Amino acid sequence: MDLERLRKQIEFIKEIDKVKSVFRQNRLLDDSRYENDAEHSWHLALMAMILSEYANDAALDLPRVLMMVLVHDLVEIGVGDAFIYDVKDREAKSSKERASAECIFGMLPPDQRDQLMALWEEFEAKETPEAKFAGALDRLQPLIHNSTVQGHAWKKHGIRRHQVYSVNSRIQEGSEPLWALAQDLIAQSVKNGYLEE
Amino acid sequence: MDLERLRKQIEFIKEIDKVKSVFRQNRLLDDSRYENDAEHSWHLALMAMILSEYANDAALDLPRVLMMVLVHDLVEIGVGDAFIYDVKDREAKSSKERASAECIFGMLPPDQRDQLMALWEEFEAKETPEAKFAGALDRLQPLIHNSTVQGHAWKKHGIRRHQVYSVNSRIQEGSEPLWALAQDLIAQSVKNGYLEE
Repeated sequence: MDLERLRKQIEFIKEIDKVKSVFRQNRLLDDSRYENDAEHSWHLALMAMILSEYANDAALDLPRVLMMVLVHDLVEIGVGDAFIYDVKDREAKSSKERASAECIFGMLPPDQRDQLMALWEEFEAKETPEAKFAGALDRLQPLIHNSTVQGHAWKKHGIRRHQVYSVNSRIQEGSEPLWALAQDLIAQSVKNGYLEE
Repeated sequence: MDLERLRKQIEFIKEIDKVKSVFRQNRLLDDSRYENDAEHSWHLALMAMILSEYANDAALDLPRVLMMVLVHDLVEIGVGDAFIYDVKDREAKSSKERASAECIFGMLPPDQRDQLMALWEEFEAKETPEAKFAGALDRLQPLIHNSTVQGHAWKKHGIRRHQVYSVNSRIQEGSEPLWALAQDLIAQSVKNGYLEE
């Protein structure tokens, strides 16, 4: 056995524990606290398992979607979560995320470094059916949460309907049925007073 | 589109948010707080991706391992975490976990209910190579954590070396190399005074 290889892998596995301390703007559904990136990634993986039948591409490679959502937020270690409605912050964090990806994935043996880097780049590029579907889930999950906890993050940051609509319209690239669901959630949130027109 | 089917799936996705509030005896690696089941399940999925080459069965079905570890702790919603060294508590919780499985997975459309129930039962039975490997990761992760945070859970519950050795020896059913690593961690923990002889 290559002990140096195993040592690197275990160091990586220990390092990524830090993603459990990267908190998002999302509340848990019982509104008790903010959600962290590890919980969010786990939730997206479960959503992928349950909702893959709604992907626009019927030949979706589900295992690749699972692996993509499981690793997509590791780059936020040391950088922090980028709030989806804060365009400036997202742009500022984008180059830092690449440096973070090289740092985190670079802890692994070269073959696995390349594999995880490729998964992250695929997710970011949103060109393949798998990345488009993973991206759709990454937008739908906070929408489900926000519409359940009375629009907590929207109110806190003064986000309005047209912003939510615009940002989430990319859901349709991965799944038309889930975009229909998202539009329902947005309309209900406006009606309930959780989101300003 | 079958709206009733989608409604059930979304209700399930909302219900499982509760697993983020089921806390374990494990500390995060920075010892800042206890870990919850969603974070733990995410971590096992990443470990499966990185360590699958060490599975005893070279023909391991990695996607099934991923799905198994992602769902394996959902039954703890409403039941709570069963500490692996507390045999009585584990026995008492076992029958409750089956009822919980029927309740949680029963929220899904029948085909998906059966699929997730089968994954959970396979994990519990530890008969297939995938379940044995998933079970090995489920034991190895707390061992990595405990040996890093100076044996927090072992000290708190008065757990000794022979118990840790006995419980974790099942790691070898899924992976001989990871069992060798586990034995190193146990020996180092005793040497460092984190675990009583």
